[in-house]
Amino acid sequence: MPDTFPRAEPLDRSATAELQHVIDTKTKPPGSLGRLESLGLQIGLIQRTARPRIERPVMIVFAGDHGIAAEGVSPFPQEVTVQMVANFVAGGAAINALSKVSGMTLEVVDAGVASALPPAEGFVDAAIRRGGTRNFAHEPAMTRDEALQAIARGAERVRYHAALGTNVIGFGEMGIANTSAAACLMSRICAVEIDACVGRGTGLDDAGLNRKRDVLAAALKKHAVSADPVDTLATFGGFEIAMIVGGFLAAAEARMTILVDGFIVTSALLVAHAINPAVLDYCVFAHASDETGHRRMLDYFDAKPLLQLGLRLGEGTGAALALPLLRAAVAFINEMASFESAGVSDKTA
Amino acid sequence: MPDTFPRAEPLDRSATAELQHVIDTKTKPPGSLGRLESLGLQIGLIQRTARPRIERPVMIVFAGDHGIAAEGVSPFPQEVTVQMVANFVAGGAAINALSKVSGMTLEVVDAGVASALPPAEGFVDAAIRRGGTRNFAHEPAMTRDEALQAIARGAERVRYHAALGTNVIGFGEMGIANTSAAACLMSRICAVEIDACVGRGTGLDDAGLNRKRDVLAAALKKHAVSADPVDTLATFGGFEIAMIVGGFLAAAEARMTILVDGFIVTSALLVAHAINPAVLDYCVFAHASDETGHRRMLDYFDAKPLLQLGLRLGEGTGAALALPLLRAAVAFINEMASFESAGVSDKTA
Repeated sequence: MPDTFPRAEPLDRSATAELQHVIDTKTKPPGSLGRLESLGLQIGLIQRTARPRIERPVMIVFAGDHGIAAEGVSPFPQEVTVQMVANFVAGGAAINALSKVSGMTLEVVDAGVASALPPAEGFVDAAIRRGGTRNFAHEPAMTRDEALQAIARGAERVRYHAALGTNVIGFGEMGIANTSAAACLMSRICAVEIDACVGRGTGLDDAGLNRKRDVLAAALKKHAVSADPVDTLATFGGFEIAMIVGGFLAAAEARMTILVDGFIVTSALLVAHAINPAVLDYCVFAHASDETGHRRMLDYFDAKPLLQLGLRLGEGTGAALALPLLRAAVAFINEMASFESAGVSDKTA
Repeated sequence: MPDTFPRAEPLDRSATAELQHVIDTKTKPPGSLGRLESLGLQIGLIQRTARPRIERPVMIVFAGDHGIAAEGVSPFPQEVTVQMVANFVAGGAAINALSKVSGMTLEVVDAGVASALPPAEGFVDAAIRRGGTRNFAHEPAMTRDEALQAIARGAERVRYHAALGTNVIGFGEMGIANTSAAACLMSRICAVEIDACVGRGTGLDDAGLNRKRDVLAAALKKHAVSADPVDTLATFGGFEIAMIVGGFLAAAEARMTILVDGFIVTSALLVAHAINPAVLDYCVFAHASDETGHRRMLDYFDAKPLLQLGLRLGEGTGAALALPLLRAAVAFINEMASFESAGVSDKTA
């Protein structure tokens, strides 16, 4: 399979001064809406308009199982991945409640979970390998071809929604043990020692945390360092992360605004950014997760997330919670009067 | 006029364990929704139910003029207060866009601006004194009776909405020079030197900031310290702040969840809290303003606001932006499945 990725272009910033003028002449002191102003500017530049809109926002949750779960790196048993996918499909998970309240269309994608689920509305079976990834404590999580296929299928899901008019997207994930995959991707791509990348995930105790550190340190020693992000992705997985990589690339190509969720999704962004740095121009960092390592990933991108709410759940919950801030940024640009149109006096100075 | 204030009761916390159990058995690791979980608990306790709801959320923006504006403590001329009230009524201000996007009913209240505005839908003329407060550089901003009247009228506005079913409320404000009033209230009530309370407001330069500090330091010297929060409020004003004090007391009495906006609104909370500390139990601190002094006010209440977005506009904009997080907190409690109902395995440990 050839390495043909979606072709995202760097953001065209030529309209910056014009858009900034629109923002600065609204009836408020310049800069007084803080982060909403830079957010509105970014969305306006992405959409190439001074009248940006949030159209058909979508949350895609990709789920995959991880061979590394066999090493006891999560306090939850592997079957929880499939059980939680069923919970997503039935509407009972956090991301169901939060994407609904934010007005986002939710799609659940099986990227390769342990056992197949029955067809359902809003559920897409895109599994690359039934049973999930191989155990990277012993062998690479996937082949290079499997990684490329997963990237392509993730891109395909985003293009489907682009065709329906979606211009804002968030990605979520589910996969028992996927903080282990993400920590190894981070360690390799950011060149940071593994201890700084490993956290408690969904709730490891101290003994479990130590075990996870040992398992991952040994796994990293086993696999040679590669300068190719696709090789690194294939080595550590998972299929849901690989699909999100493709999702990022395709969303940037389609000039969507991308809401970046927590630790796992940001690990996918590390890979996507290594493939094409332009992706970053389309990203809004939604929240700072409580998972160890996420803060350092954010520093790697020099990112200041919109929300700090102590979340450590994943599923795309942080991204869903940030959507109302995008709606607010777009609303103030479209709806506020200017000093001139409202007949409000500007500063005396 | 006798000092009869709305009677807010301390929060009944007897259902805490029961509600916490509901939250902990949702299909997510315990605590993994971070601040949303404590928020959901607080709203559930306030509403005395495990099925909390956000009903008819309201934003009331109180506007008043300030005699102290004559001392040149703001970079904007005083007429901007009336112009901005007209802008609110016409729908062109930031709070119009942000309360609309958050689904809040907006009411604008004239608490005493320089000149009367024509009647309009959603606009209430409750002015105590046409022309605004007196200049507290020379004399008290209002009489004690005026302060009590303003508190009563603010409470009246909240009771009006309580009767219509509102159970979440936010307060906003407009008043050129009102950061000066708020800074003096803060200095007196928190017993903090004035320099730590004075900021750039809507955008003072260094010279303006120094002038504002000097003016307020001299004014504080002029007026004796009083242990009575109503006297302190009357001394420094303003009418919009006094109405928000009444709003806080009445909203807590009606067991509403109260979204606390920035520097000015929090200064009103300082007064309301000094009158009845139980008010605090009903408050959700919406955001940390960029205005100097707000962080210290928040520390005074040991408050960790939901949002840090660099806002420094007032109008209730921070409170409006936080409402979606309340909707999310209520949504996860009502809509998420439990481990048992969803057939999801709990921790192996």
